[in-house]
Amino acid sequence: MELNRMGSTAGQVITCKAAVAWAPKQPFVIEDIQVAPPLASEVRIKITHTSVCHTDVSVWQIKELVHVFPRIFGHEAAGIVESLGESVTDLQAGDHVIPIFQGECGHCSCCRSSKTNLCEEFVVNPAEGLMMTDRKTRFSIRGQPIFHFMGTSTFSEFTVVHHAQVVKVDPSAPLHSICLLGCGVATGVGAVLKTAKVEAESSVAIFGLGAVGLAVAEGARIAGASKVIGVDINPKKFIKGKLFGLTECLNPLDYGQPIQQVIHQKTDGGVDYSFECVGNVDVMRTAYDSCHKGWGVSVVVGVDTSSRRLLEFNPLELFEGRTWTGTIFGGFKGRSQLPELVDKYMKKELQVDEMITHRLPFLEINEAFKLLIEGNSLRCIMHMPNSGY
Amino acid sequence: MELNRMGSTAGQVITCKAAVAWAPKQPFVIEDIQVAPPLASEVRIKITHTSVCHTDVSVWQIKELVHVFPRIFGHEAAGIVESLGESVTDLQAGDHVIPIFQGECGHCSCCRSSKTNLCEEFVVNPAEGLMMTDRKTRFSIRGQPIFHFMGTSTFSEFTVVHHAQVVKVDPSAPLHSICLLGCGVATGVGAVLKTAKVEAESSVAIFGLGAVGLAVAEGARIAGASKVIGVDINPKKFIKGKLFGLTECLNPLDYGQPIQQVIHQKTDGGVDYSFECVGNVDVMRTAYDSCHKGWGVSVVVGVDTSSRRLLEFNPLELFEGRTWTGTIFGGFKGRSQLPELVDKYMKKELQVDEMITHRLPFLEINEAFKLLIEGNSLRCIMHMPNSGY
Ligand SMILES: NC(=O)c1ccc[n+]([C@@H]2O[C@H](COP(=O)([O-])OP(=O)(O)OC[C@H]3O[C@@H](n4cnc5c(N)ncnc54)[C@H](O)[C@@H]3O)[C@@H](O)[C@H]2O)c1
Ligand SMILES: NC(=O)c1ccc[n+]([C@@H]2O[C@H](COP(=O)([O-])OP(=O)(O)OC[C@H]3O[C@@H](n4cnc5c(N)ncnc54)[C@H](O)[C@@H]3O)[C@@H](O)[C@H]2O)c1
Ligand SMILES: [Zn+2]
Ligand SMILES: [Zn+2]
Ligand SMILES: [Zn+2]
Ligand SMILES: [Zn+2]
Repeated sequence: MELNRMGSTAGQVITCKAAVAWAPKQPFVIEDIQVAPPLASEVRIKITHTSVCHTDVSVWQIKELVHVFPRIFGHEAAGIVESLGESVTDLQAGDHVIPIFQGECGHCSCCRSSKTNLCEEFVVNPAEGLMMTDRKTRFSIRGQPIFHFMGTSTFSEFTVVHHAQVVKVDPSAPLHSICLLGCGVATGVGAVLKTAKVEAESSVAIFGLGAVGLAVAEGARIAGASKVIGVDINPKKFIKGKLFGLTECLNPLDYGQPIQQVIHQKTDGGVDYSFECVGNVDVMRTAYDSCHKGWGVSVVVGVDTSSRRLLEFNPLELFEGRTWTGTIFGGFKGRSQLPELVDKYMKKELQVDEMITHRLPFLEINEAFKLLIEGNSLRCIMHMPNSGY
Repeated sequence: MELNRMGSTAGQVITCKAAVAWAPKQPFVIEDIQVAPPLASEVRIKITHTSVCHTDVSVWQIKELVHVFPRIFGHEAAGIVESLGESVTDLQAGDHVIPIFQGECGHCSCCRSSKTNLCEEFVVNPAEGLMMTDRKTRFSIRGQPIFHFMGTSTFSEFTVVHHAQVVKVDPSAPLHSICLLGCGVATGVGAVLKTAKVEAESSVAIFGLGAVGLAVAEGARIAGASKVIGVDINPKKFIKGKLFGLTECLNPLDYGQPIQQVIHQKTDGGVDYSFECVGNVDVMRTAYDSCHKGWGVSVVVGVDTSSRRLLEFNPLELFEGRTWTGTIFGGFKGRSQLPELVDKYMKKELQVDEMITHRLPFLEINEAFKLLIEGNSLRCIMHMPNSGY
């Protein structure tokens, strides 16, 4: 019985290809690595498709995190369960799954509350490189440990993930598309529907029109927003932006005045909701200032890892009635709520494929990074050598 | 007809007693002053009772505002309409009224929204000393203008207020109690019911147990909060605190660790809602940190006029899911919603009298200020010489 649930490699160390980052900002090297079997509560997954999110780029670039290298990045992916550690009873070998960086233990005070998707046990920490089960790694190369990333490390043919970070999904959903629900799409759509709870007829401003920002646009469309303004300094992004229902695209570089003033003029005093999908403290401030006084809510989605600057405001500004808040993974409780988003995609109520600008073999991961960094891709999906794609 | 709506002094300059502040932080001098008739849209009110709120103290102490002196402070009061300027059709001489510092024009984008009590036309600005109608003052002494305060200036037997800042109330409600609904009580109760919308069974922490903080406790009681923690550095405040339903009182000076840690321990990770009712940037930060991650909401009520320091936070902190917001006048739209609060008081569903620790004749205003500044009063209500109290 136990055996039936497992693939033929169960219990064995697997040797496979992975993209190893040997040092911050250094190109990835495709290496043959060893992946140990999952410990109790863990799952070993054969990744079929993975893409690159800006968080991979940002954290890979942080010089200070040199102590967690060599490292396997990646957190936006899909795959198939290869084998299970002891006590994992809710999954089977062969299940189609999406790994999630925001775990859901299911029993802590946060998991029991309907108000948040955070978890007391699984706290997202890009500086952490070990599995929480035993504070060790499951990856190694020539006997040297390779560090994990956000508990997912999907830039590998096989990875080991805690089962609280694995979501079983409809096996008929195409893995080469729904891998985007592992981060970007869920984050953006959820920021609108779960975190901000945007009402129909609202006005929305989106700063940064990468995949996350466009997923915010998609969320705004689903919520029935009447005005959706996109802001980006790269006008190439406006083309797809229109496809995602933006009613207006603004390039701050085209205006002689601060863009928040332009937005105030176009919206009779500011938008109802703004979303920062760049990861820049100054843009966060601009997004906040773009909201209407009295009720505007500004949601920070972007992660500023570069400047380490603080957000500052005069406490008297709070009396103007704007609210600042943040979202991780769009407020989705991954294990319990992500399957609904997959269903939405299957019912064609959610645009995902429109975000895929490139597809590359996994071995060309450095090209995929370059495309994102240079602003030439939204999402580039990489297929693994043996994915059957 | 027009005449019937007016008192016998209508249209005339009135000479009466007022407490004039000649310079920042200098004792008030009871003077005979002249009060001009109301212009169009304005109302002249005979004040019967007024009390001192900490905002009067804080603004009076700001050295930088020397250019708006001499000045008549006061914004928590009740009285009777003496006469009306042209075009004021919704009030009559003899109406019982509460002046409000947060006006409600009724037609701007904020007034039309149910999400805020702010108003685009009437913006609270403690540095403003002129009537908005003509950018002049209605008060003078020996021909010299005396500046207004927040459009209310209730430390005078007669005052002139824009009709958007006048609330008509049930004439059977005792003016010597409901004057507190002009600021402190409405602010605290509304911060809970209107701004934070605290749900039954929530946990609440209140920083600062003056009248505003105790009104928050009263709001929490009405909302059905299960745990209400009061924090103050003056233990005298705990006595009344218990009467207002605090389940626990903490003096930060009694603990060898930061008080937010103590609160986390007592509430399994932090309170659902915290309220800052002190007016101190450091306490604002502590109140924010006392909230539970994932959903905690911290409402800033206190006004920090002294330090001019900024609130600072790392943008990554927003991903912990706490929200910072502020409230002015407890989110009540004064003209349309304050009468309901008066009714609540009349039906004994709202404790107000329990907040009144002292009563003094208006002429002893310096003593009333001293009582509040030294932490010996919650609210001291002053009756005017001819109030009939
Ligand atoms: N909170 C979460 O759970 C979560 C999840 C996923 C991604 N993120 C973060 O969201 C952000 C966006 O991710 P992405 O993958 O969509 O990135 P991306 O690189 O595809 O998109 C970022 C966009 O911002 C634009 N931009 C850069 N500077 C700008 C400026 N000053 N003003 C306006 N636009 C500007 C770029 O041109 C680009 O189009 C990143 O910071 C990422 O780390 C957060
Ligand atoms: N937002 C608004 O609309 C609004 C309306 C009214 C009052 N206010 C503000 O609310 C605040 C409270 O007003 P009030 O009239 O109740 O004042 P108050 O002086 O009666 O009460 C303040 C309380 O804070 C306590 N305190 C001082 N320092 C403290 C600290 N470090 N930690 C904990 N407690 C501390 C004092 O002992 C006192 O009991 C003031 O800042 C006032 O300006 C704001
Ligand atoms: Zn991501
Ligand atoms: Zn949990
Ligand atoms: Zn006040
Ligand atoms: Zn208005």
